[in-house]
Amino acid sequence: MALINDHFLKLKAGYLFPEIGRRVSQFCEANPDANVIKLGIGDVTEPLPTAITEAMHSALNEMSQHETFRGYGPEQGYDFLRSAIARNDYRDRGIDIADDEIFVSDGSKCDTGNILDVFGLDNKVAVTDPVYPVYVDTNVMAGRTGEADDDGRYEGLVYIPVTEENGFKPALPSEPVDLIYLCYPNNPTGTVASKETLKEWVDYAKKNDSIILYDAAYEAFITEEDIPRSIYEIEGAKDVAIEFRSFSKNAGFTGTRCAFTVVPKTLKGKTSSGELTEIHPIWNRRHCTKFNGVSYIIQRGAEAVYSDEGKKQIAELIQFYLTNAQLLREGLESVGITVYGGVNAPYVWLKTPGGSTSWDFFDQLLEKGHLVGTPGSGFGASGEGYFRLSAFNSRENVIEAVKRFQNVVS
Amino acid sequence: MALINDHFLKLKAGYLFPEIGRRVSQFCEANPDANVIKLGIGDVTEPLPTAITEAMHSALNEMSQHETFRGYGPEQGYDFLRSAIARNDYRDRGIDIADDEIFVSDGSKCDTGNILDVFGLDNKVAVTDPVYPVYVDTNVMAGRTGEADDDGRYEGLVYIPVTEENGFKPALPSEPVDLIYLCYPNNPTGTVASKETLKEWVDYAKKNDSIILYDAAYEAFITEEDIPRSIYEIEGAKDVAIEFRSFSKNAGFTGTRCAFTVVPKTLKGKTSSGELTEIHPIWNRRHCTKFNGVSYIIQRGAEAVYSDEGKKQIAELIQFYLTNAQLLREGLESVGITVYGGVNAPYVWLKTPGGSTSWDFFDQLLEKGHLVGTPGSGFGASGEGYFRLSAFNSRENVIEAVKRFQNVVS
Repeated sequence: MALINDHFLKLKAGYLFPEIGRRVSQFCEANPDANVIKLGIGDVTEPLPTAITEAMHSALNEMSQHETFRGYGPEQGYDFLRSAIARNDYRDRGIDIADDEIFVSDGSKCDTGNILDVFGLDNKVAVTDPVYPVYVDTNVMAGRTGEADDDGRYEGLVYIPVTEENGFKPALPSEPVDLIYLCYPNNPTGTVASKETLKEWVDYAKKNDSIILYDAAYEAFITEEDIPRSIYEIEGAKDVAIEFRSFSKNAGFTGTRCAFTVVPKTLKGKTSSGELTEIHPIWNRRHCTKFNGVSYIIQRGAEAVYSDEGKKQIAELIQFYLTNAQLLREGLESVGITVYGGVNAPYVWLKTPGGSTSWDFFDQLLEKGHLVGTPGSGFGASGEGYFRLSAFNSRENVIEAVKRFQNVVS
Repeated sequence: MALINDHFLKLKAGYLFPEIGRRVSQFCEANPDANVIKLGIGDVTEPLPTAITEAMHSALNEMSQHETFRGYGPEQGYDFLRSAIARNDYRDRGIDIADDEIFVSDGSKCDTGNILDVFGLDNKVAVTDPVYPVYVDTNVMAGRTGEADDDGRYEGLVYIPVTEENGFKPALPSEPVDLIYLCYPNNPTGTVASKETLKEWVDYAKKNDSIILYDAAYEAFITEEDIPRSIYEIEGAKDVAIEFRSFSKNAGFTGTRCAFTVVPKTLKGKTSSGELTEIHPIWNRRHCTKFNGVSYIIQRGAEAVYSDEGKKQIAELIQFYLTNAQLLREGLESVGITVYGGVNAPYVWLKTPGGSTSWDFFDQLLEKGHLVGTPGSGFGASGEGYFRLSAFNSRENVIEAVKRFQNVVS
C-alpha cells in the first residue's frame, strides 16, 4: 500500500500567489476591459541586459558545434562561474569565500527548500513573521511541524514577529532554536539589518550551536553604505551561516533561472550521537545526487553579470527599480500612508489605511484601482494589516499605479 | 544544536561516477600522453540539433526585448511545452494523457529523487539490482533504509536481481512492496521490457496498491516495434504509475537541462489513516513550492524537439548513437565477449572476460586500453562481473575503442 507523505495535508490551502492569481483571474473575467496593473509577485519586467544575452547567444553557438559542445557539467556549477561569484561577491569585498564553497543552482526558492534535506527532523526552526512562505511550507512538508492554528501558525515552529512595534527587528528567541531563517533585504517588509543586528544573531547562533539560513536574494538593492550585503561580513558567520543568493532580482533571471548557495567548509552540525560534522560534504552529496547542474548556456549568462559591461548594465537595472520604489514610497506617503522599505529593497510595505484587513484591502485595490498587490497576512499572522507593493514594473505603470492608489485611499 | 540528517552518513563513500572520475584523473596524471576514450558516463557528445538551437536563439531574442520579455513562468512548465509533450509523446500514440498531467523539470535525476517528497517514510521500496544508483541513494537520504551490508545492499530495501540467469527480467517481489522503480530501456543493462512483462508489473501494482516509478529516459532508443515506449501503453497503468522522461538523451540536453514527469490524475496513494488521496495535487504543490520552472529559453528548445525539423534531426542523432552501439556490440562479440543491450538502448552490458571483478576489469581496460567504462558492481551487487559501455561518443572514438578493447581481451 503506497503511502503519501501526510505532512502535505497540513499545508494551508493554496500557496499565496496562486490565491492572488485566482482572484485576479476572476476579476479580469468579470471586467475584461480593465487595465490591471500588477505590483504583486516580485517579478522583474525589464529585459535581460545585452552583456548577458550576448554571452548566452555565444554559449548557444558553442552548443551547436562539435568542437565546443558540452554535455553534463559539474553539478556544483562550472569553475568559471563559481570563481566569478566567489571573487566578485565575496573576496573582492574582503570576505574569504573559496570557489568551491559556492554551489550554483537553478533558484533560491529551490535552494532554501532543498537545504532542509541535510538537516535532521528534530531541529527547532525559527522564522520571522511575516516571512517568505516557502521557508515555512518546506518545513511543514518535511514533517518538522504540527498542524496550523487558526492564524496559520504551525505548531512546533518558532515565529518571531517583525512589525512596526519592534521597528521590524526580530527579537532573539527566548528558547534555543537550531535553524533560523533570516532574509535581508527583507521580503516582504523591504527592511534591512544593520551590522550590529546581524552580529547579535551570529553571536546567538554561536552560543546555541544554531545555523542561520541567510537569504540575501535582494542584496543588489542595498543603497546604504553601512548595511551588510552578506552575512559573512560579520566575523565568525562562516561558522554558523549558509547564504542564499540569486540572479533573479539583480540580473532579471526570474524566467532564466540561476542562483547560488554558499556553504562554508567551517560550518558544522551535530550528528544524533553528538559528534560535530561538516555540512559542506553533506550538501555536496545532496547536490550531486538530486541535481544535475544548471544549463551551460545559463551559466555563461550568469558569468556575464560580473563582466565590466554586465556590472554597468545591472547597476542601471537596479537603479531603475529603486527609482520605482522611491516613487511608490513617496506617492503613498503623500496621501498619508505609512510606508516601510523601498530604500534598500524593491518592496514597499505599507500599513493598510483605515485598519482594514490585508485581504480586504487587496480586494478594494483590485476593484476600485485595478491594482494588484500582496496581502501582508499572506506572509504570516503578524503581516495582518500590512500590504506589499513590488517596484518591479515599467515606469509608466508605477506612475499610473501611484495615481490610482491615491484615488482609492483618498 | 543544529542536527544534520544522519541518514546521509549511511551512504557508501562516493557516488559511482565521482569514483570513476578519481581513478581516471589519477591515471591521466601519471600518463599525461595517453589518449583516453571515455565510454563511462552516459553523456551525449553530438551538438544540439539546429532546430533546437534556432528556437533557443529566438527565445533569447525575446528575452532581450521589452515587449516579449518573460519573468517567472508557470512552475509546471509553459502550456506550449506541456501540450507538445502530451500530444506527441502520448495522445498521438493513442495514450490518453492530459497536458496538465505533464510536469516539466530540469532533469530526470532531480525528478526521480524529488518525487520521494510526496511519499511517506513507511513505504517498502523495491529496486532492481543492478540499478541506477540515484534511486537507492535518495531513499537512503530520506531515511527509508537501514545501513548498507558488505555488498552495498541497504537494509529495508527490496533488491530484485536482473542477471543473465533470469534473462534480465526482474521477478515479481515475493513480499508486498509499495514503491517499485522500473527503468526501460534499462540503465545499466540496456535491456527492455515486453508488454507482457510490464503488464505483470501493472497487475502486481494494482493487486498490492503499489506505485511504479517508471523511468523511460531512454525511450527514444527503442527500435523494436512491439516494445512499449511508455508504461501507459499498458491498460490501467495510469492508476498505478508515474513516468519520467528526459530530453537529455534524445535531444542531447545533458548540458542544457530539461525533462518531465507524468503524474496521472487517477493515481492515488493512501494517507496513514487509510484514505485514498490523489497524488497529482500533492506533487503539484511540491513542484510549485520547491521548484520555479525551467528557463523559458530552454523550454522553447524542448518544444522544437517536436517540430517536423526537430523530429527529423533527433531521429538522425538517435540513429547515430544506435550505430555506435551496434559497432560496440558486434566488435565485442567478435572476440567472444558476451554482450547484452545495445539494440534498444545506448548501453551495452557485457560479462567481464575471465570472470574478473568489475573494478579489476575497469582498471585493466584503463591501463592497457586507455578506455573508460562503468563497472557493473557500481550499479549493485548483482552487477558484479558485468561492465557497461556507453555508445555516446564520436564514430571515430567508438571504432578505435573497439580495436583497443579487442587488443586488451585477446
